[in-house]
Amino acid sequence: MTFPAWDACNRSLLKKEILTPALLLDLDAFEANLTRMMEHVKRSGKALRPHAKAHKCVEIARRQLAAGACGVCVATLAEAELMSKGGITGLLLTSPVADPQKIARLVETGAMVVVDHIQQAEWYQDAARSAGRKIDVLIDLDVGDHRTGARSTAEAVEIAEAVDRASHLQLRGLQAYSVVGSHAAAGGERERNSQETFAHAAETRDAMARKGLPTEIISGGSTGTWQIDTALPELTELQAGSFVLMDMAYRRAGLDFRQGITVLGTVVSANHDSFVSVDAGTKSFSTDRGYGPEAANLPESSYRFGGDEFGYVEVADPARRPRLGDKLEFIPPHCDPTVNLYTAIYACRGERVEAVWPVKTLAL
Amino acid sequence: MTFPAWDACNRSLLKKEILTPALLLDLDAFEANLTRMMEHVKRSGKALRPHAKAHKCVEIARRQLAAGACGVCVATLAEAELMSKGGITGLLLTSPVADPQKIARLVETGAMVVVDHIQQAEWYQDAARSAGRKIDVLIDLDVGDHRTGARSTAEAVEIAEAVDRASHLQLRGLQAYSVVGSHAAAGGERERNSQETFAHAAETRDAMARKGLPTEIISGGSTGTWQIDTALPELTELQAGSFVLMDMAYRRAGLDFRQGITVLGTVVSANHDSFVSVDAGTKSFSTDRGYGPEAANLPESSYRFGGDEFGYVEVADPARRPRLGDKLEFIPPHCDPTVNLYTAIYACRGERVEAVWPVKTLAL
Repeated sequence: MTFPAWDACNRSLLKKEILTPALLLDLDAFEANLTRMMEHVKRSGKALRPHAKAHKCVEIARRQLAAGACGVCVATLAEAELMSKGGITGLLLTSPVADPQKIARLVETGAMVVVDHIQQAEWYQDAARSAGRKIDVLIDLDVGDHRTGARSTAEAVEIAEAVDRASHLQLRGLQAYSVVGSHAAAGGERERNSQETFAHAAETRDAMARKGLPTEIISGGSTGTWQIDTALPELTELQAGSFVLMDMAYRRAGLDFRQGITVLGTVVSANHDSFVSVDAGTKSFSTDRGYGPEAANLPESSYRFGGDEFGYVEVADPARRPRLGDKLEFIPPHCDPTVNLYTAIYACRGERVEAVWPVKTLAL
Repeated sequence: MTFPAWDACNRSLLKKEILTPALLLDLDAFEANLTRMMEHVKRSGKALRPHAKAHKCVEIARRQLAAGACGVCVATLAEAELMSKGGITGLLLTSPVADPQKIARLVETGAMVVVDHIQQAEWYQDAARSAGRKIDVLIDLDVGDHRTGARSTAEAVEIAEAVDRASHLQLRGLQAYSVVGSHAAAGGERERNSQETFAHAAETRDAMARKGLPTEIISGGSTGTWQIDTALPELTELQAGSFVLMDMAYRRAGLDFRQGITVLGTVVSANHDSFVSVDAGTKSFSTDRGYGPEAANLPESSYRFGGDEFGYVEVADPARRPRLGDKLEFIPPHCDPTVNLYTAIYACRGERVEAVWPVKTLAL
C-alpha cells in the first residue's frame, strides 16, 4: 500500500487528498464515543470488552484498552492472531470453532474462548495440553437465536462440567449474547429481550454455581442495548463494539453516539442535472441492510447503488449538485461489513489525516 | 498470510485442510469456461478483453491472455496497477476517473482509458504530456443507464474531437456498456437491450467516422449477453468477465458456464436436528442480490444469513444434517463482490490445492 502525497513529501495528508474509495474515522467522534461508553460502563460497575470484529484494527483496540477496557472480543482466528501479535491482552473469541488446526493456533493467542459442545471442549483440552498452556473458557448459551450455544441449562451444565474436568481448561462462566437484541425495536422490545436473555443466563449460572462450577463472568450485550444490559445485575461485561464507529442502522435504531466512520467517494461522472455518479458502490459499502449509505454533508440527497464500483447520488436542488471530481463523505449502512471491505482506516482530525491504520481483512 | 499445513510439510494441501472461510476456484471448470468463451469469440470474429474486476487476480489474467484474450478490463486504479505490475498487457480501465492524482498514476500503467467529459480528456492530456507518454482513449457512451457516459451522439462527438486534438491522447473508438444488459430477463429483453445498445453505438461511431475520427474499437457486452453481443456486427471486443467464475445470479439468468468459484465454510455449531451454523456469513458472501448462497453438495438444503460471521444451513432430512467440523462448499450469490471479500483464491484440481493466488482488495 502506498500513500504517495503523504510519503513523498513527509507532510500531513489532507482528507481531500485521499484517493477514493477510502474509509475514514473521525478521531474526535471516536474518542468522544469511547469516553462516553467507558464512563457509563464503569459507573454501572461492569467491565467493557468491546468487540473488535467491528474495526479489526490494532490501533483502535490499543486505544480501547488505554481507555479502560478489560480486553477486546474477536470473532475469528484471524482477528485473534492479529490482536495477539499487536500486543492486545484480554482477548475473548466469541464464536465457537470446530477445526483442530484453528484450535491449535487459537491456543497460542492466549484468547479466552467459548464452547457450545463437549467435542469442542475436548479439542481445546488436547490443543492446550500439547502447547503446555491453560486457557480460559466460557460456556456459550443459546438465549433464543439458535445460532450457537447450549440449548438448555442442563446442556450448558453438562458442557461446563466437562470443561471443569479438563486439566488445561479453566472455566470462567458464560457467554449470553442475543443476536436479535442489538437491533430489536426500541420502546419495550429491546428491554424485554435483554431481560429474558439475562434471566436465562442467571438460571444457568445458578445451576452451575450449585454444582460448584466457576461463574464469575457473564459476557454479552451490544451497542443496541448498552444502557439496558449494563443496568441488569447479571451481566458482568459488555461486548458492544459498533458504538465507536456507528452507522445508519444504529442511527435508525435511535442510538445517539457520534458518527465515527465514513466512506469517501469521488464524483466520476456528472453529465446530468439532478444526479451524479460516484466511485463507491457495492464493493465500498455493506449491502446487507437492504439500503444504501447517506451522504453526510449533502442535504436533500439520496444514494442508490449503481453496481460494484458506482453509486448514483440524486440531489433535490440542481444548484447543489456536486461537480466532477468533488469528494463526498458517506455514512455506511452497517459498520462491520463495511470496514471489512477495506485494508486501511484514515484516522482524521478535522480536515487532516493524523494516521493511516491497517485493517485486517478476512484471510487467515 | 500463512498456510501452515502446506508450508510446513512442503506437500500438497488438500481442499479439506483449508482454513475457512476461504474462496476456492475449480481449475477444471475455470479452464473449460475460458476455452469455451475464447473459441466462441474467435469464431465470431471478435476480440475478448475479459473484465478483471470479477477476479482481481494476476494469475487468472495471465491465463486469459495465454488463451488468446487481447488484454483485460479493469475497473479501478488499484486493479490497473496490480495488473500492470503483474505484466498484464492490453489493459482497459472501463470507469471514468476524476482525480488528477489517480490520472497521473493511471498514465504510468499504460492502460487505455475511457472519458465521458471534456475535463477528463484535459486531465489525461496533461498527465500524459508530463509523463512523456501517449495513451489510448475510448469515448464512454451512455447507452441508457445514465451511470456514466456521454449523453448523446453530439456530446460524444464533441468529446471525441477534444481527445483527437490532444497531442498525447490517441482516440481509438467507443465504450458502449449496458449496465442493465448483463442481468436483463431472458427471452427477448436481453436481445432487445443489446440491439438498442449497439444501434446507438453504431450511430455515434458513424457520426465520428464522418468527422474523420478513429472508431476501430467498440467495446462492451457482458457474460449475460455473450452470445447476443458477439453476433452483432458493431461490437469489436467483448468485456465479459464473470463467465470464468460464475455465480447464482448468472445461473438463475440461465447461463450454463460451469461453477468455478465456491466458498468453503465449516460447521461450527450443530446442536439442532434440522439445521447447523457455519462460519460464513455476510463477511464471506456478497449480500447485494437479496439472497444468500447455496450449498453445492447438500441437496434439499437452504442457507440463511446469520450475521457477519455466521450462516444457518437448514436440511430437509435430519439424517443428512452435516456434523460439527464438517466443511461445506457454497455457490456465492454474486461473484464480483464475493471475490472482493478475500485476499486469496485456493486454486483446486479436484480435492487437491494446486496453488494459492493473491487477490487484490479495495485499497490503493
